[in-house]
Amino acid sequence: MMTQRQERGRGSGIPAMPAGPGSIDIDNLPALARGCAVMGAGGGGDPFVGMLMAREAIHQHGPVRLADLDDLPADGLVMPCGLVGAPTIAIEKLQNGGEGARLAAEVEDLTGRPVVAIMPFEIGGSNGLIPLNWAARLRLPYVDADGMGRAFPTIPQMTMNLAGVPSSPCVMADERMNTLVIRAGSVGWTERLLRTSTASFGGAAVAALYLMDVATARHATVRGSVSRALALGAALGRAGADPVGTVLDELAAVQLIRGKVIDVERETFGGFVRGSVIVEDVLTEGRLLRLEIQNENLAALEDGEVRACVPDVITVLDARTGEAIVTERLRYGQQVAVIAFPGPEVWRAPAGLAVSGPDAFGLRFPYTPIRTGGVRAG
Amino acid sequence: MMTQRQERGRGSGIPAMPAGPGSIDIDNLPALARGCAVMGAGGGGDPFVGMLMAREAIHQHGPVRLADLDDLPADGLVMPCGLVGAPTIAIEKLQNGGEGARLAAEVEDLTGRPVVAIMPFEIGGSNGLIPLNWAARLRLPYVDADGMGRAFPTIPQMTMNLAGVPSSPCVMADERMNTLVIRAGSVGWTERLLRTSTASFGGAAVAALYLMDVATARHATVRGSVSRALALGAALGRAGADPVGTVLDELAAVQLIRGKVIDVERETFGGFVRGSVIVEDVLTEGRLLRLEIQNENLAALEDGEVRACVPDVITVLDARTGEAIVTERLRYGQQVAVIAFPGPEVWRAPAGLAVSGPDAFGLRFPYTPIRTGGVRAG
Repeated sequence: MMTQRQERGRGSGIPAMPAGPGSIDIDNLPALARGCAVMGAGGGGDPFVGMLMAREAIHQHGPVRLADLDDLPADGLVMPCGLVGAPTIAIEKLQNGGEGARLAAEVEDLTGRPVVAIMPFEIGGSNGLIPLNWAARLRLPYVDADGMGRAFPTIPQMTMNLAGVPSSPCVMADERMNTLVIRAGSVGWTERLLRTSTASFGGAAVAALYLMDVATARHATVRGSVSRALALGAALGRAGADPVGTVLDELAAVQLIRGKVIDVERETFGGFVRGSVIVEDVLTEGRLLRLEIQNENLAALEDGEVRACVPDVITVLDARTGEAIVTERLRYGQQVAVIAFPGPEVWRAPAGLAVSGPDAFGLRFPYTPIRTGGVRAG
Repeated sequence: MMTQRQERGRGSGIPAMPAGPGSIDIDNLPALARGCAVMGAGGGGDPFVGMLMAREAIHQHGPVRLADLDDLPADGLVMPCGLVGAPTIAIEKLQNGGEGARLAAEVEDLTGRPVVAIMPFEIGGSNGLIPLNWAARLRLPYVDADGMGRAFPTIPQMTMNLAGVPSSPCVMADERMNTLVIRAGSVGWTERLLRTSTASFGGAAVAALYLMDVATARHATVRGSVSRALALGAALGRAGADPVGTVLDELAAVQLIRGKVIDVERETFGGFVRGSVIVEDVLTEGRLLRLEIQNENLAALEDGEVRACVPDVITVLDARTGEAIVTERLRYGQQVAVIAFPGPEVWRAPAGLAVSGPDAFGLRFPYTPIRTGGVRAG
């Protein structure tokens, strides 16, 4: 069994400095990245890229305070933000670093109020890390909450929408100094205008939306999600010979299959990546699991039956290391374990299911809740 | 020969009230519509729809003062505006009337300055009339100038661009209460973001851009274009047995062909309508003229030779009435005269040709200036 220090040091060359309590430093960043990857259902963008950006920013500007919403002023303005678009593109179309400052400047200009804290609009994947990069540069606290508790591909799929927070004004920016302000008549139009603009920006951009005060954020977000990702990532960092088992235990997750990726279909268009992946069981020849993808893993099907589906979280892990593999990194021949665990309760309630269940993605089957309890069947 | 009064009264039911000097009223609106149609090179949107909107607004709010830029305060803010998108869509996707007020409110909010006058960004087609509708509602003067002196399909093809006026911020709006503010790093990006957003809005929207003060507008626009359209339309209204001849004389235009539309290919996508039209000579069997279209008539080709092309103006007239037929109204069997006349000088100079010549549209032939002098060959 490796020590945490050894694990950290192994591939990344990151010095094992102790992080202060309630802050994110170079020290605990890899744990956050690992946790975000697992919680992202394969989406939210490649956490390695997000981690490099956040590491650079923290290296330059110092650690970022992780703030509970109860510890921020009730009337302060929270800026939920992150990357939008196709993760397949985001891994190559890199940011210039100044996007967050431009989003914040535009938001402050539009509202006439200072931003008091940065919040990831989704905790999953690189989107749990990219806004941290911006928080470091802006020297603002990072809210210990997000708008999904996982990753989802579209704008209406944020808890702020369920809570009635307007999606407008929505500010977009890219690395070429373009900015866009959308004031849409409905959240559906925000999504539509943001998505086509994202495609126009080249398939990936950054956005801030669902601007709200801290008092609203206290009941309109998934709280504690950054801490949760940190804890999950730390546990994975401490894992011994069975890292997949550690993840299953930490999340009370089920393993749907362990095997080899034998087919990957992927298409990037309209600001999304869509496709499907087939995993063949390592032990039972001919036993297949099919994953349907729209940025995230949406559903796992076996012999035409739904094993797991949105809003529950389906994540593909490297069978050896237990690290999550985001959808844009899935390749033929990878040895993987596909796990699933319940999505946040807010999404499993009727109002949540209406925007995040299978039907919201055009999948023609009802929501089939994942059975939990640490069953490792697969 | 019909009198002007009879001509006006015939189809439109518009009472022949005298318009005040330097103003646009219900009385001279049909002349403006006719003139804009001819100057539009088939583009800018159906002037009939634009005229109905402007008539309704003038009926409610009174005549609009037509203002020379020399008579407006030098530091006043001019709002160039109009319809963007595919004319094929604009004739069915009608506005709600409040778009101009929303554009102006957003512009005033962005700049912190009041709009002192409304200017059509293109004089051609309905775009010479729609901003007049807004000017009437806002009780603002209408600038006797535009940004094209004709119609063109894209944002860089405005004289304000040649004069170095920034295209950002660009405000867009639609009839569903969506608004968008684009701040692009370049005019190319304004065009790109505006175009995909236009497609997203459903293929047509309205926009205000190239915001400038009156002093700048004095040298950055095609001046007198509204008066020119009015005069041209009035001459056409007075025309006798040979209205096509009247147009040719008024514009020192050449007739490229007179004949029948025998083929129309048209496709609406990406916020444009593109296609081609073939006209067969009425007298010489087998003699064909082919028009290439992107919103506007871009080029007229005969036996593979260029007879006329952008930035010169190619307009299709109804052979009987001399009224222009916009590209989205071209149909098999129409009896037409295709005429051409020189585009504004600013477009025929090297800098103008770079953004408005054949190459700017992907047409792989050099600019072939139209030969003028009232030659009616064809």
